[in-house]
Amino acid sequence: FAALLPATAQADPLPSWNDGKTKTAIVDFVTRTTTPGPDFIAAGDRIATFDNDGTLWSEQPLYFQLAFVLDRVKAMAGDHPQWKNTQPFQAVLEGDSKTLLAGGEKGIMELLAATSSGMSVEDFAASVVEWTRTARHPRFDKPYTELVFQPMLELLAYLRANGYQTFIVSGGGVEFMRPWTEGVYGIPPNQVVGSSGKTEFKLDGDTAEILKLPAIEFVDDGPGKPVGINRFIGKRPVFAAGNSDGDLEMLQWTTLNNGPRFGMIIHHTDAKREWAYDRDSRIGKLDKALDEAPKRGWTVVDMKDDWKVIYPFEK
Amino acid sequence: FAALLPATAQADPLPSWNDGKTKTAIVDFVTRTTTPGPDFIAAGDRIATFDNDGTLWSEQPLYFQLAFVLDRVKAMAGDHPQWKNTQPFQAVLEGDSKTLLAGGEKGIMELLAATSSGMSVEDFAASVVEWTRTARHPRFDKPYTELVFQPMLELLAYLRANGYQTFIVSGGGVEFMRPWTEGVYGIPPNQVVGSSGKTEFKLDGDTAEILKLPAIEFVDDGPGKPVGINRFIGKRPVFAAGNSDGDLEMLQWTTLNNGPRFGMIIHHTDAKREWAYDRDSRIGKLDKALDEAPKRGWTVVDMKDDWKVIYPFEK
Ligand SMILES: [Ca+2]
Ligand SMILES: [Ca+2]
Repeated sequence: FAALLPATAQADPLPSWNDGKTKTAIVDFVTRTTTPGPDFIAAGDRIATFDNDGTLWSEQPLYFQLAFVLDRVKAMAGDHPQWKNTQPFQAVLEGDSKTLLAGGEKGIMELLAATSSGMSVEDFAASVVEWTRTARHPRFDKPYTELVFQPMLELLAYLRANGYQTFIVSGGGVEFMRPWTEGVYGIPPNQVVGSSGKTEFKLDGDTAEILKLPAIEFVDDGPGKPVGINRFIGKRPVFAAGNSDGDLEMLQWTTLNNGPRFGMIIHHTDAKREWAYDRDSRIGKLDKALDEAPKRGWTVVDMKDDWKVIYPFEK
Repeated sequence: FAALLPATAQADPLPSWNDGKTKTAIVDFVTRTTTPGPDFIAAGDRIATFDNDGTLWSEQPLYFQLAFVLDRVKAMAGDHPQWKNTQPFQAVLEGDSKTLLAGGEKGIMELLAATSSGMSVEDFAASVVEWTRTARHPRFDKPYTELVFQPMLELLAYLRANGYQTFIVSGGGVEFMRPWTEGVYGIPPNQVVGSSGKTEFKLDGDTAEILKLPAIEFVDDGPGKPVGINRFIGKRPVFAAGNSDGDLEMLQWTTLNNGPRFGMIIHHTDAKREWAYDRDSRIGKLDKALDEAPKRGWTVVDMKDDWKVIYPFEK
């Protein structure tokens, strides 16, 4: 008889989520939208979008992409003596994270563009892969790509098993994420939407390359998220998850629509196992979206109460 | 024993292609890249990109998107009396296609942006769907979406049956293509790369919209095609098909790489069943890419000789 039961009745698809109203709301939504009835959503319209920093992996004590950029600036500083007196490089070399964070995702993208200008996109991807292999997070002494949220990996897999397509929609650089998102999240490059730098095509004899230019093309944050979703995905999501005010417009665009819609906010409430921060944080500030959640019916995930484990290595 | 034979041996996957070196080259490439051996390509890397105008459907006597725009301008002209003396609207109203075509894909995008500014992306998509239902091609008196190439529909299906992901990479507007590419080509919106206009997110009370702005964001033509591929797909294709010099850089980016690669040029040689044009055409000019084809090993499809039928309705 197992084959006749809905998949959710056979085995717990979300073993790292504690029982409670959050988990019930997720399973109920997926069941309703994939079962014939008034809330059914056709497979091609099951579009789910996920912020990355603070939603799928941690973002403290610094956005992980910023840690990557800092490592690049330090490694390149010997060849650029003028950086000692030039912002934002000076802030990097002096460890002045306050100045760095004041620029937000856009400031990080500027540093990224400056330190990768003239590289081919393929060489840049190789430098990212190398960094994910060698860099270690200061608190956990593990590769950054191990600091992904086990409950969110289960949620991604659960949605995909139910015919949802899962996309990343992040303020982070698209070229920083794509080299590892398929292996870590099961999300291939063409389902990653992010901020981007300008590039140009160059043919030199029989060699074709795409080179990175020192200019920002698109900042996929705040109101840029629905714009990026429309540009890259071309369909309006029915499920969106984020953790900060940078996700407010994505959550609005997703949920202020007819039919069943799911808005999720990851609330960092667990100072012991991860970090606790929201309204006053310089990283992942969550203020307006937290106020708007009850009015819009968004589900606020309480990391401390809702998640049995945070990271895969805790299992 | 049928199950032990390669799929290509069981039934002809390309029945509208005449036997000959073009068809043999296609089947050989697909077989080699999907069979264990030195030319095998992993499923996730089987990325195939297709130009649209003149490659997947016809583009004469005017790019079909231009026909759509002309219909829009004419329908809106009553509310915009100043268009009679303002280019490029004047050229539209006077039927001056020479002036219109001089602007290329970019000129069409400008007209498209001007005539759709302030519309929501959803309303614009609805207007495209309505046009595909009601407009008729002047020569064939059929909906434009029936003037797609039957042999190319078979090629798309054949590639997908062999684990290839098929993408459109077109100079045409992405919002003009996405409403119908899934039904006509089996290519979903997030696998359509094209030129785009700027948009903005707007929240008005409980209504969230993305509005089109009267400005071009990106022209996905010529050197813009590899840039667009990198931005939207994030992987380098192994198969690319085009029909004009606007595809030259896409073909270079795809084929000037290690491993098995396939470059295809559709050569319009059939004045009787379709149209014959190349080096001197104002539409779909094919000159440099035709010269470069033998040097790069690109396969030039001769429509007259290689295709048994052109359109699905001829079958
Ligand atoms: Ca975030
Ligand atoms: Ca073309």
